Amino acid sequence: MMIIMKPSATPQDVERVIEKIKSVGLAVHLSQGVETTIIGAIGETHSLPTDTFEVMEGVETVQRITQPFKLASRQFHPENSIFPLDGFTVGGDELALVAGPCSVESRSQILETAHAVKEAGANALRGGVFKPRTSPYAFQGLGEEGLELLAEARQQTGLPIVVEIMSQVQLDLMVEYVDVLQIGARNMQNFNLLRVIGETQTPVLLKRGLSATIEELLMAAEYILAGGNKQVMLCERGIRTFETATRNTTDINAIPVLKSLTHLPVILDPSHSTGHFDYVAAIARAAVAAGADGLIVEVHPDPAHALSDGRQSLKPEKFAAMVRQVGQIAEVMGRRLATVKIPAHG
Amino acid sequence: MMIIMKPSATPQDVERVIEKIKSVGLAVHLSQGVETTIIGAIGETHSLPTDTFEVMEGVETVQRITQPFKLASRQFHPENSIFPLDGFTVGGDELALVAGPCSVESRSQILETAHAVKEAGANALRGGVFKPRTSPYAFQGLGEEGLELLAEARQQTGLPIVVEIMSQVQLDLMVEYVDVLQIGARNMQNFNLLRVIGETQTPVLLKRGLSATIEELLMAAEYILAGGNKQVMLCERGIRTFETATRNTTDINAIPVLKSLTHLPVILDPSHSTGHFDYVAAIARAAVAAGADGLIVEVHPDPAHALSDGRQSLKPEKFAAMVRQVGQIAEVMGRRLATVKIPAHG
Amino acid sequence: MMIIMKPSATPQDVERVIEKIKSVGLAVHLSQGVETTIIGAIGETHSLPTDTFEVMEGVETVQRITQPFKLASRQFHPENSIFPLDGFTVGGDELALVAGPCSVESRSQILETAHAVKEAGANALRGGVFKPRTSPYAFQGLGEEGLELLAEARQQTGLPIVVEIMSQVQLDLMVEYVDVLQIGARNMQNFNLLRVIGETQTPVLLKRGLSATIEELLMAAEYILAGGNKQVMLCERGIRTFETATRNTTDINAIPVLKSLTHLPVILDPSHSTGHFDYVAAIARAAVAAGADGLIVEVHPDPAHALSDGRQSLKPEKFAAMVRQVGQIAEVMGRRLATVKIPAHG
Amino acid sequence: MMIIMKPSATPQDVERVIEKIKSVGLAVHLSQGVETTIIGAIGETHSLPTDTFEVMEGVETVQRITQPFKLASRQFHPENSIFPLDGFTVGGDELALVAGPCSVESRSQILETAHAVKEAGANALRGGVFKPRTSPYAFQGLGEEGLELLAEARQQTGLPIVVEIMSQVQLDLMVEYVDVLQIGARNMQNFNLLRVIGETQTPVLLKRGLSATIEELLMAAEYILAGGNKQVMLCERGIRTFETATRNTTDINAIPVLKSLTHLPVILDPSHSTGHFDYVAAIARAAVAAGADGLIVEVHPDPAHALSDGRQSLKPEKFAAMVRQVGQIAEVMGRRLATVKIPAHG
Repeated sequence: MMIIMKPSATPQDVERVIEKIKSVGLAVHLSQGVETTIIGAIGETHSLPTDTFEVMEGVETVQRITQPFKLASRQFHPENSIFPLDGFTVGGDELALVAGPCSVESRSQILETAHAVKEAGANALRGGVFKPRTSPYAFQGLGEEGLELLAEARQQTGLPIVVEIMSQVQLDLMVEYVDVLQIGARNMQNFNLLRVIGETQTPVLLKRGLSATIEELLMAAEYILAGGNKQVMLCERGIRTFETATRNTTDINAIPVLKSLTHLPVILDPSHSTGHFDYVAAIARAAVAAGADGLIVEVHPDPAHALSDGRQSLKPEKFAAMVRQVGQIAEVMGRRLATVKIPAHG
Repeated sequence: MMIIMKPSATPQDVERVIEKIKSVGLAVHLSQGVETTIIGAIGETHSLPTDTFEVMEGVETVQRITQPFKLASRQFHPENSIFPLDGFTVGGDELALVAGPCSVESRSQILETAHAVKEAGANALRGGVFKPRTSPYAFQGLGEEGLELLAEARQQTGLPIVVEIMSQVQLDLMVEYVDVLQIGARNMQNFNLLRVIGETQTPVLLKRGLSATIEELLMAAEYILAGGNKQVMLCERGIRTFETATRNTTDINAIPVLKSLTHLPVILDPSHSTGHFDYVAAIARAAVAAGADGLIVEVHPDPAHALSDGRQSLKPEKFAAMVRQVGQIAEVMGRRLATVKIPAHG
Repeated sequence: MMIIMKPSATPQDVERVIEKIKSVGLAVHLSQGVETTIIGAIGETHSLPTDTFEVMEGVETVQRITQPFKLASRQFHPENSIFPLDGFTVGGDELALVAGPCSVESRSQILETAHAVKEAGANALRGGVFKPRTSPYAFQGLGEEGLELLAEARQQTGLPIVVEIMSQVQLDLMVEYVDVLQIGARNMQNFNLLRVIGETQTPVLLKRGLSATIEELLMAAEYILAGGNKQVMLCERGIRTFETATRNTTDINAIPVLKSLTHLPVILDPSHSTGHFDYVAAIARAAVAAGADGLIVEVHPDPAHALSDGRQSLKPEKFAAMVRQVGQIAEVMGRRLATVKIPAHG
Repeated sequence: MMIIMKPSATPQDVERVIEKIKSVGLAVHLSQGVETTIIGAIGETHSLPTDTFEVMEGVETVQRITQPFKLASRQFHPENSIFPLDGFTVGGDELALVAGPCSVESRSQILETAHAVKEAGANALRGGVFKPRTSPYAFQGLGEEGLELLAEARQQTGLPIVVEIMSQVQLDLMVEYVDVLQIGARNMQNFNLLRVIGETQTPVLLKRGLSATIEELLMAAEYILAGGNKQVMLCERGIRTFETATRNTTDINAIPVLKSLTHLPVILDPSHSTGHFDYVAAIARAAVAAGADGLIVEVHPDPAHALSDGRQSLKPEKFAAMVRQVGQIAEVMGRRLATVKIPAHG
């Protein structure tokens, strides 16, 4: 961390900054130029807020040199994190391909979808049971009944299930049923939730907040990793910008940027990042071409009657076409679509 | 709600949309033009998602005419909501002036600050005890001990206390201690939290999310109002934009826009919306000139040693100067600063 | 265009809107509901600003149904526009691959680069001679001398040259030398410039402004098309958002959205849209996978000594590796890299 | 400027950076820490792009310490710039109050408006004659005829006239007629235009681009100042963000930030920054309360029939009411509304 002093800073101002650096256990490097004095704070600075110094007399600005995250950083963990997920691995050569409806709506809907996405090439099943809805008057999900239906779908298809958790009071229930805990965009900085999930050993799919920076996403992952849970996948799902032609703006840059900053697997959600089924396949191909480790896609057998997100859901046959294209791109990238076997007892 | 059909829509497409409108209990108004057919869905549409129709064959786009919120809307409640807060009222002629440190750090810090802001003209005391911190390595707040210190400060000064709640598991504890429950920007769409707070009768200060639209803020308020809790203040605290000269961009437009859309009181937080103490007074004056019903400001007796947000905290003497300026602007606007008496038992 | 009246609108308000619609030569469709009256204005509305009606008494809001552009719209021109460019075509099966330095700096630099990018597979050469620089103290380009050097490079390699024009006073000079006139992001809404370029027959590469919407980009193209020049390529080059990890945010969604809205060719500039050479290849692959008709990429023989944009320029050998990857993705997409023959007189 | 090296940088990498710093005439300050080496480049760095070093081997990042602008900076010119404008001064105690229609439409319209705004308290008249319109099909302005009408209005009222220039080919004509050259948001980075205007001695009103940072606005001013024209007013007119409730987002923070960074006068345009007449007065009051040196406001005698921007134009009587409120706020701020006398020959 570098503290850059104002041209008008007095020797006493400089002295006070030096004292403060020492008081938090860091070493000092002083560089006095003609125009400016710069003071380096050397040591374990990743946990030190920059405003510790910014408020001091004579300080112009403070620049962080080292990243404010550590466990998530590729600097300290150069190899990709690869972890198993019911018959395939995430973060290595195999692509994760999570598909399913926005909400679990009924037994027939989720079972039909599960079989259809499995057949089309998906290796995990998504489905919401507690839904974060902007309006208090909209469908809020089936709750525990939905979890039971998902478990049945898993038993029949062998697909591991990915479900969003919205509150720490749902944790025990969720951990009992699901294979991957999804943290939604609106909860990316629900630090209480991150902390308790960090204390479990259930794999996590952490979605980027709709106006979170890449650094904030990595800091959120750091919360979970710091608790001891190392199985975290990051998910780009579109950010909020001035453009209104699509629901969100897919930050495709985030794929190569994240792959260079962190060892954690990175997947992309083209359904939310575009908001329209017409654009999902193009962005799914782009994500894999950019180096993503997987995709999470909304699929519904009858989007026109979906209780939520129908506009961005693919019909199973369109999803199957998308998977074929994605598979060809994956091959160019030296990756492959992993497949999941139907369980013997299924 | 208007459903605009594509030029290529068939009579069958039109018929299916009409059926769907009727199936959800709404009336139909059909307008067939040379280029375009428009179908109006008339009735209680504020709870109906637009994508109900957007996914149907032949539909070009769907436009909402009525607002998607109702209890928060000035259309259905033309008079300002005014509610009492320990000796003064919010939303009427009196300005709310909430001040205090980002975090409660110690007994002496909070008591000293409480007396100083009271003397300077504040009529409520803020102070965080559970802190949402971007880094898992930063100071996370004193918890219940902090609440007890705030209660002591209230007893001595008579100032009602405003404290952020971060999770529904903290609700019982919070309701016991605090006068106003603050919902932070990161939790504005934590719908589980909004719902349980809606079931209490404790006044609420709801902060706008850093990339939430004005409409989404009103929808979040709607969640609380729908639960039966009518005492909700809205708080503009800056939005995230491309500009990096300040921590956030104060959306000053939000003040007159909110005042025209809703009957709820609207206050502004110039500390977070600028991120720098140098700019707080200018933006506080601007907010009152634009019609805000109050301010919430970070004040710390020694910002250089604050455990959080020191860079944007005012020293008590600077806060006192700000209050004098704000008082003059308030007078021009036909408003006044309310004062709180020290309680007899204090 | 639909004019939605307020619930409080009087019959006189409605009558005045109807009169106004008729006065501009449009037909009227009136739809009176229980809550709301909607008035449709039918006919050639694409040139009519919505605020014609928004300012009238009793009007709640005005919704445009038809797009505000026409010549650029795929609705009126369903087939892709394909036009020739010195030995290959843009907008069809062949991918445009424009490469070269940000600025022409010297004879040896531009000739060396031209040969290197040609060998690597580029089919057009870019190079700036009048540079839009944020700082008045930065290198501003070689001017006409640069054009002569580019012409020499074209003669030696056969590559058509793409050069940015910054002002209408440069038009005659530019048209004499260049094969494609590039309009930079900062000039996308320099309407005087668009108009005079529309009167030439030189192909145009129109870059999206850094905060322009997709609709505004198409309106800017409309200016050129309206003048009679039909050879316009659109270029996504990144938009400005809150994210600072990259120089801009590549709006990859813009590729499929533009391809569905317009018949004009769409290319992507991964150098500007990322701002860092490390990310250029990943985003180039993503663009082609998303359906782009080409790429424009900054290549410099010695980025560390470039006079501008060195940080985002590829060395020729990295560019060659990128072209190989892009070629494989193109094949999956049913496209191919066009090659340009060295001219007999070269 | 500080060059921060990667932990993996070799001594040769460090040596090469040091050579480069020396080669551009700067002095070197070397600070070698345990984790990181930092190299300071000391001297006239404001004209040196950071990517000079960012592309070098072993460099992690480059931080600018001094501002990249100089003539516009308050650091080198601590006193406010105050300059005369036909009977009053801008930048001192008097507030500039520029008012008038978006476009000059006819003799009666501009004369009527000029008299009305003069009577209401305006001290300068605005009016567009070359209009930057998003659509090629919209009204494009009266051109030179409009300038003659504005000159007549000036003769009758004594109000200096402020007119937007769109292209350098209009310069001679403009300089002959107008008192203040306005540079519109879309031309803020039209560097050719900035440069030629810098060579005149006509006062300038420079509007911030709709996605320009505060630093970029100051760099644009630097272009004009570097040419020798010192009479530049800056104008905040709203930035583009995700919020759609208003046309733009007024960046009210920009007022105190600019006042601290530069000595140039700063005014605000509440008509464009809100886009709706209902919000103009509130934001005009806020601007003056925040410390703005003036306002520029759209006024039209009959907004419902304006050829452009009717939705955001005030009627003269609403403008007069706004001026009264602004005058009271100005008084609190120790400022006053300047008035212009009708010329003897008027």
